[in-house]
Amino acid sequence: MNVDIIALRREFHQHPEPAFCEIRTAARIAQTLEAIGIEPQTGDAVIDTSGVVDYPTEIALEAAADFAVRTGADAGWTTRIRQSGTAVIADLPGDRPGPRWGLRVDIDALPIQESTEPDHFPAGNGFVSSVSDVMHACGHDGHAAIGLKLAERLVQDPMFPGSLRIIFQPAEEGGRGARSMIGTGVVDEIDHMLAIHLGLDLPTGHVVGGSSGSFATTKLRARFAGAAAHAAASPQEGRNALAAAAAATLAVLAQPRFSTADTRVNVGTLHGGESVNIIPSWAELTAEGRAVDDAVMADLCQRIVRSIENSAAAFDCGAEVIETGGCPTMASDHALAERVSQIAASLGATTEVLGKMSGTDDASLFMRRVTERGGVADYIQIGAGNRHPHHSPRFDIEESSLDLGVALLEKLLRTAGDQALL
Amino acid sequence: MNVDIIALRREFHQHPEPAFCEIRTAARIAQTLEAIGIEPQTGDAVIDTSGVVDYPTEIALEAAADFAVRTGADAGWTTRIRQSGTAVIADLPGDRPGPRWGLRVDIDALPIQESTEPDHFPAGNGFVSSVSDVMHACGHDGHAAIGLKLAERLVQDPMFPGSLRIIFQPAEEGGRGARSMIGTGVVDEIDHMLAIHLGLDLPTGHVVGGSSGSFATTKLRARFAGAAAHAAASPQEGRNALAAAAAATLAVLAQPRFSTADTRVNVGTLHGGESVNIIPSWAELTAEGRAVDDAVMADLCQRIVRSIENSAAAFDCGAEVIETGGCPTMASDHALAERVSQIAASLGATTEVLGKMSGTDDASLFMRRVTERGGVADYIQIGAGNRHPHHSPRFDIEESSLDLGVALLEKLLRTAGDQALL
Amino acid sequence: MNVDIIALRREFHQHPEPAFCEIRTAARIAQTLEAIGIEPQTGDAVIDTSGVVDYPTEIALEAAADFAVRTGADAGWTTRIRQSGTAVIADLPGDRPGPRWGLRVDIDALPIQESTEPDHFPAGNGFVSSVSDVMHACGHDGHAAIGLKLAERLVQDPMFPGSLRIIFQPAEEGGRGARSMIGTGVVDEIDHMLAIHLGLDLPTGHVVGGSSGSFATTKLRARFAGAAAHAAASPQEGRNALAAAAAATLAVLAQPRFSTADTRVNVGTLHGGESVNIIPSWAELTAEGRAVDDAVMADLCQRIVRSIENSAAAFDCGAEVIETGGCPTMASDHALAERVSQIAASLGATTEVLGKMSGTDDASLFMRRVTERGGVADYIQIGAGNRHPHHSPRFDIEESSLDLGVALLEKLLRTAGDQALL
Amino acid sequence: MNVDIIALRREFHQHPEPAFCEIRTAARIAQTLEAIGIEPQTGDAVIDTSGVVDYPTEIALEAAADFAVRTGADAGWTTRIRQSGTAVIADLPGDRPGPRWGLRVDIDALPIQESTEPDHFPAGNGFVSSVSDVMHACGHDGHAAIGLKLAERLVQDPMFPGSLRIIFQPAEEGGRGARSMIGTGVVDEIDHMLAIHLGLDLPTGHVVGGSSGSFATTKLRARFAGAAAHAAASPQEGRNALAAAAAATLAVLAQPRFSTADTRVNVGTLHGGESVNIIPSWAELTAEGRAVDDAVMADLCQRIVRSIENSAAAFDCGAEVIETGGCPTMASDHALAERVSQIAASLGATTEVLGKMSGTDDASLFMRRVTERGGVADYIQIGAGNRHPHHSPRFDIEESSLDLGVALLEKLLRTAGDQALL
Repeated sequence: MNVDIIALRREFHQHPEPAFCEIRTAARIAQTLEAIGIEPQTGDAVIDTSGVVDYPTEIALEAAADFAVRTGADAGWTTRIRQSGTAVIADLPGDRPGPRWGLRVDIDALPIQESTEPDHFPAGNGFVSSVSDVMHACGHDGHAAIGLKLAERLVQDPMFPGSLRIIFQPAEEGGRGARSMIGTGVVDEIDHMLAIHLGLDLPTGHVVGGSSGSFATTKLRARFAGAAAHAAASPQEGRNALAAAAAATLAVLAQPRFSTADTRVNVGTLHGGESVNIIPSWAELTAEGRAVDDAVMADLCQRIVRSIENSAAAFDCGAEVIETGGCPTMASDHALAERVSQIAASLGATTEVLGKMSGTDDASLFMRRVTERGGVADYIQIGAGNRHPHHSPRFDIEESSLDLGVALLEKLLRTAGDQALL
Repeated sequence: MNVDIIALRREFHQHPEPAFCEIRTAARIAQTLEAIGIEPQTGDAVIDTSGVVDYPTEIALEAAADFAVRTGADAGWTTRIRQSGTAVIADLPGDRPGPRWGLRVDIDALPIQESTEPDHFPAGNGFVSSVSDVMHACGHDGHAAIGLKLAERLVQDPMFPGSLRIIFQPAEEGGRGARSMIGTGVVDEIDHMLAIHLGLDLPTGHVVGGSSGSFATTKLRARFAGAAAHAAASPQEGRNALAAAAAATLAVLAQPRFSTADTRVNVGTLHGGESVNIIPSWAELTAEGRAVDDAVMADLCQRIVRSIENSAAAFDCGAEVIETGGCPTMASDHALAERVSQIAASLGATTEVLGKMSGTDDASLFMRRVTERGGVADYIQIGAGNRHPHHSPRFDIEESSLDLGVALLEKLLRTAGDQALL
Repeated sequence: MNVDIIALRREFHQHPEPAFCEIRTAARIAQTLEAIGIEPQTGDAVIDTSGVVDYPTEIALEAAADFAVRTGADAGWTTRIRQSGTAVIADLPGDRPGPRWGLRVDIDALPIQESTEPDHFPAGNGFVSSVSDVMHACGHDGHAAIGLKLAERLVQDPMFPGSLRIIFQPAEEGGRGARSMIGTGVVDEIDHMLAIHLGLDLPTGHVVGGSSGSFATTKLRARFAGAAAHAAASPQEGRNALAAAAAATLAVLAQPRFSTADTRVNVGTLHGGESVNIIPSWAELTAEGRAVDDAVMADLCQRIVRSIENSAAAFDCGAEVIETGGCPTMASDHALAERVSQIAASLGATTEVLGKMSGTDDASLFMRRVTERGGVADYIQIGAGNRHPHHSPRFDIEESSLDLGVALLEKLLRTAGDQALL
Repeated sequence: MNVDIIALRREFHQHPEPAFCEIRTAARIAQTLEAIGIEPQTGDAVIDTSGVVDYPTEIALEAAADFAVRTGADAGWTTRIRQSGTAVIADLPGDRPGPRWGLRVDIDALPIQESTEPDHFPAGNGFVSSVSDVMHACGHDGHAAIGLKLAERLVQDPMFPGSLRIIFQPAEEGGRGARSMIGTGVVDEIDHMLAIHLGLDLPTGHVVGGSSGSFATTKLRARFAGAAAHAAASPQEGRNALAAAAAATLAVLAQPRFSTADTRVNVGTLHGGESVNIIPSWAELTAEGRAVDDAVMADLCQRIVRSIENSAAAFDCGAEVIETGGCPTMASDHALAERVSQIAASLGATTEVLGKMSGTDDASLFMRRVTERGGVADYIQIGAGNRHPHHSPRFDIEESSLDLGVALLEKLLRTAGDQALL
């Protein structure tokens, strides 16, 4: 077998799957790893979905498994992954002692309807999403492909010190995936934790060695409970949960900016009500806060919760707010970032040592765990010439960025010293 | 065949179907009519669904047809009704010349999850809704059963002047059903138009001969169009359709009361947004206004539309507002109401001649057409001891009201003079 | 002295004074009563302002007293009334025993800027309000003039059974005036309690003998307390009381209509915030609810308070809500209303016996007290051809209605039997 | 005369005056300048208030002039300044040719009620604000005192190259003062433009040589026009301007954060409505946006205006939005900042060369004019140990910061080379 990175990326792109439903993707990753001679790890050793909020229903998982098999995934892997969760780990030993590296690549897609305009590259080239309302709009298709190609290279030529663990992580979007894996200890023995991201509005051929300034985030879900009533015959007997949710939406968005840290707030979804002629008895919204400072994040989260709960009470409704996901801020090790930057330059890339990572990535959970245990961590940004922003229906990456990603990581590993950087 | 009115009502109750999906109900009505010797009319002659807003999708209709056959409906009728719409008409000739009567009975259910508490009569007696989130919470199961039993009586003994057309109407809830039928001329030859309603918080054994003070209503749907964007990386590139919809919801609810007519406003449902971490690009709400005066209704409707469109613009979003349903106010003919009341009294009922009808019923469309063409119309209220309000998960009717309904209508027809009341 | 009712009405109109600042008006009433030979009662015997919420400040009272003297009020009465409150009572004994009648006329104006357009009668005839932002926009100028003219007639010719107490009441608008008087027992010995109102969109020459369906009302004031902060340097240290008040405003307006009783809600005023560049630490609003049913009023009031308090909490602010005024519903005695209607007819008026009173009047407090003690009460509506609605800048009454008002009341008293109507 | 900088600062503090009402302050500045031998410039040559939005009314100016004279200001200067505006300019020639320096010091206070707690230094030391609801809560009292003391030093010993123009500017808060002066050309001949600010949460003895990152700002005022109506008798005839303003408030606050530049939004004040029982016909709010980027500021401003206008339209009201003030971002010249920092260090201060200025100052208008004409500009931050934030009721400066400010500026001027820094 010879891993065709472009073909793999396109296959993933065409078959996008949302958080924790990445059964086809994970099965194909496992299959590919097997084909190149690695025994993939899945299941309880690498993921524990028991605490995941809003884990997909059995019906959704069944549909995802059907989709996997129908579109060419191995039936055996599909079954195993459908039962145990969509995380896959590949362990690659080097040929001599050295640092234990970790690399997180995420594999989930987003609930977005992809553009079918012909000048949208995937549409014009026959690999646009085959699934309505799901789309790889963040480049994770490329991440997965890079992970597999890198694995092939290191298996075919294991001449590097130490070892590499590649973590194919589900559910990065929404901040639930790293949480579901971290408790199994998957990075507890890692010395050097890496994560990569394609795109980020950087040109292809540009690499940012390390990242800072990313947002911590907390994702929340609020359920409003009121009482239904006939909207004409007895409106006063209703307790209007939808009015409550509307007021809460505006109250959340009206929370103040902070002078102490850049922040974000969003109410991403809202659903509620029975019928046009019934006073709505229920509503449900999802909201998030972000801050480039963990203490500010905690403060902001408290404010959002307060806004929601009291807006509900203003309409005599209850609101149950739970945290569904989240992650802390991240900071890259400066020395490691410099090293990455130098290697990138040696491969012909334009580079920066450290750059702002203006989003959120739950790789920060793995990074923080490793640094708390004495290791170092780095979040690498690899330009991919995206002409449309992440999470937009026309987002796309230039595929030549994929080879650069593989080459960069490979060279980083092969040229690392035999000692962990501490 | 002998129509068992209680069994029929329970069967309909157990198999509730929402607006325009009443395939099983309509098929069973058609079957039952055939069994008692009447050729039911369905299809283009009685319904035109081409202009119906939000008519169910093919998928929904297919599912409804599957449900019908799976739960015992005749396959032939199911197929015919699935294709042409869920209205059924039964024409019953009397034994001598006389006025042409019309009777509207509605057959649709509501998107409500029925109570399964054992002291809820349908739950305790084994005929609770078999379908999650759909429920006969307005007594239309009883209306349909009364219509069929009345048909049987008049077929078995056609001793009455003139004729009776029973209109089994879909989609009363939401005000789309009468609209879909009226254009086919189904009441254009009617002299005396009747409609009945069970419940209305009246005790069983009480009949209100005629109704006034009902609400005109307009049902609206608004679609908000903004632009999606990454909630952290580029929130300012989004145009927040969900914030717009939340603001619109509050603006609609904040419209003034009128001193000139009792009014109602409701935003019944709201859905929007892609994902917690995306600035929402879309939202959709349904709203209604009601007024006991047609001019006030027009004014209120204009205000609701204005609120929605401009609230959208406040967030740089568009809003497309369309009317999905509605109907005018109604007024019963006083002489006819008095007659009904006298007959009810003769059957042992307590009675009022005219009573307020504190809801809305699109039977008003049929009534208005008939009166505009020189006929008379009457909306009869038949108490059914409902202990919980209409549209609540515990709504129920006392079944002894059904026989009274049939007896009242039968006696009205049999004792009417041979001349139309003009 | 000969009371010129038109001149008096115009004088009052030109010198309008808001609630509890009616120093000039009360002084002129007292003066006029003295001139016709009646010793007016004022002060502690007839009013207790100690419990009045938002009673005018000393500065405002001083300004009102200055205005009174400057515009021709008697200095002695001005001083007395400024100290003790703006209520005046005139007791008029008949010439023989009989029922004790009470008549409430109110004397306060509204915070409205009167129209100066030449086709607005007071503007075109030289008696438009001389005070910016205060206006007799509800006809109380006419009520006071009727009270004085009636007093003159009954003094000049006291041929009527029993007695009449005329209560010149301050602060009807806002519902604080009757409250401030009732506790002193001013109507505790009254057998027949009357109140009159001019205008009410009825033509001049039309009299409605009695009233029903008026609104109970509760007036509220809410003070929101947050924390100020520099809007750029530390917005997060603020707690935004103005955002809270804005949310509360919408939440109050969005409270449901009731099917059980006609209701009203209003947020009439809102003030808040320090400066454009400071996060607002305070806001204050006034709100009212109305309902044609006292129990619904209590329920609605609770909802308004809940909306306000919890909207405040949604923005981490406090809200102190207090009741500033209010009154119950009213009902006129049918026999008395019939009597009034007959007398009006005898004077050439068109009449109705009972009519809806579609506003609120705190005369209801006096009326209720009297009926609770075994007496009867009646609220008489006297048409005055107002072409613009009450409380609008162009409201005006046709002055010929004043004579009819006096004649009606005079004849009612003179022709009453010698026994109280019980 | 010997200027006592502490006494002056306390005098200004005790007699705070809001924007454009600084008659007493300006008169005292002019008097003091005269006393030390400088002919102050005021009036048309230095200020043009004709375009100022919301310039104080004649009544307010008269009250301010009364206050000035009553509290010891020279009557002549009071009269002149009351007529021509509250800007004062002092021109100080050096003893030899050299660069023309400008120094902006602002003199206005804020509409805040100062704390009277004894541990609030001005309260405990007898110079708390003598005026309710106005307070020097931003240190401008100190700025004015520094300007005067510096003037005295340079008059007494003019040994410095070039010249210094001290601009005592009104109305910095709200961004209207520099606008009113800039058109008269007051800085058109300046080579080196300086501005200072005390406080900014820096410790006393700390100086930041120059500033960047300040906010551009736009101040807006919106007037909402609806229609009044009786809240019970005809609410539907009203058009609720207060509801519109409440919706606008929330819509403004809900505008998105920008990833491209730090922003702020605020609705600082809101007033509206006639009376609790009238549908509000009017409301007025003030709002501001800020951004650390001029293009983002323009975008944000457009969004705020859009929010307001369309929220008004949602309630069938009009909104007239006007810009009342504002200023661009600022950037200090690096060389000049370094020089300031070195001098500060030589005076024993701890220093930074460049620091973020996390607020807004309309000195930026003067700075930008000078740099656009080829000069250089610098905004100097002088720590004053403020323990409470700017614009809070307990804001205060440590007075030892004043001497450092004077010494720093004096040494900067005396040691400057004879050539302009270009």
